[in-house]
Amino acid sequence: MNNAIRVTEIFGPTIQGEGPLIGRPTVFVRTGGCDYRCAWCDTLYAVLPEYRDEWRLMRPADIMARVDELAGGEPVLISLSGGNPALQPLAPLIELGRGAGHGFLLETQGSVAQPWFAALDWLILSPKPPSAGTIADWDAFAACLKSARGRPRCVLKIPVFGEEDYKFARGVAGRYPELPVYLQVGNPAPLNAAAGLLPEQANIEDLLERYRWLVGRVTADRWFTATVLPQLHVLAWGNKRGV
Amino acid sequence: MNNAIRVTEIFGPTIQGEGPLIGRPTVFVRTGGCDYRCAWCDTLYAVLPEYRDEWRLMRPADIMARVDELAGGEPVLISLSGGNPALQPLAPLIELGRGAGHGFLLETQGSVAQPWFAALDWLILSPKPPSAGTIADWDAFAACLKSARGRPRCVLKIPVFGEEDYKFARGVAGRYPELPVYLQVGNPAPLNAAAGLLPEQANIEDLLERYRWLVGRVTADRWFTATVLPQLHVLAWGNKRGV
Repeated sequence: MNNAIRVTEIFGPTIQGEGPLIGRPTVFVRTGGCDYRCAWCDTLYAVLPEYRDEWRLMRPADIMARVDELAGGEPVLISLSGGNPALQPLAPLIELGRGAGHGFLLETQGSVAQPWFAALDWLILSPKPPSAGTIADWDAFAACLKSARGRPRCVLKIPVFGEEDYKFARGVAGRYPELPVYLQVGNPAPLNAAAGLLPEQANIEDLLERYRWLVGRVTADRWFTATVLPQLHVLAWGNKRGV
Repeated sequence: MNNAIRVTEIFGPTIQGEGPLIGRPTVFVRTGGCDYRCAWCDTLYAVLPEYRDEWRLMRPADIMARVDELAGGEPVLISLSGGNPALQPLAPLIELGRGAGHGFLLETQGSVAQPWFAALDWLILSPKPPSAGTIADWDAFAACLKSARGRPRCVLKIPVFGEEDYKFARGVAGRYPELPVYLQVGNPAPLNAAAGLLPEQANIEDLLERYRWLVGRVTADRWFTATVLPQLHVLAWGNKRGV
């Protein structure tokens, strides 16, 4: 199948729970497959090869038909997430969707650059901090930014689980002063769970305590250009899939 | 005292808990006095005349000195809130602050227009829905927008406590299609409290349930251009003052 895209799930409309469009209604198209394996990954079903059987190869037109069905034919923000959606051939999907009035946000760790990044509305670059147990490839990251050619709004979104991650985030922000920074409170649930099996209920008090800590850290440093956010969907729906 | 501003409190840095800059570090300058008396007002100490003794008349330079002290001399987003800050002569303060590199957001119900709205970075217009028990003055609201002269980013932020408020918000959005809309989950704590005395602890589960309801309402209507947000500071710190 030409242009086929490996899809884990399509769901919504719900709200985007993270980053610059927090609270904005969106339909998620989550692709399968990832070049990273983060220690706290909350979507292992879109990452680990043993879940491959659940992934489907879909044509752009079939994906858009499903999105339109979910969104009742109204233009909507489409969030391309993963796994790493940059591994998929998404150019035809984006072209098709934009032609129908939809907007596109893509979230990636910045390890694989694609020329079609320039066709997005938002490119959310999420380099992984030390707690992920992966090493960011800064040449690939720079290539991602270059591929965007200044067209989509590019931002940094960095999960922070503790002091080391925080220092990492400061460093990345220093390296890319032109990019708005969104710090996101890490959700430790996946760290404590068997692979792919998250407890549905989130520990709200723990997440809010972590949020307060991160706000305190940022304001103590007078880092007034960073935005500090929780994962809003986790507060609202816990670790459930499909919201 | 010329140019004196009636101030209730200056506090921060903390995060902006509402609207388009949710999660952004900010210092609040809260003015005293309001032309409205909303049923669920969460800052009655900045509204009711019996709190006047707590308000201070301050010179712009003294306000900025206090902001600079709190922010350690770094440029920061200054949130002008109230009460209704549009009742105060804020032009000299804004000029002084911008000269020092600060940014300004002002939040108002849109009942009093000021020529200096054009000097702001963000004008957050928050017309009050039926649950507030006040009647929006649409001529004054239009005058506020006109005063902005297209310079600050203008947005609508509308608290929603239930179905009637939701319908009101739909109507306002229809009236001003050019303004981005932020729907904010209403916090019922002030309704249940004696004047000005809020329970410190918020009912997080209730607030999250209200949030889920509002997201469901918006997505069921396919109102995909609205952004749905909680009051993040209330989730993090409850109804406490000064955060």
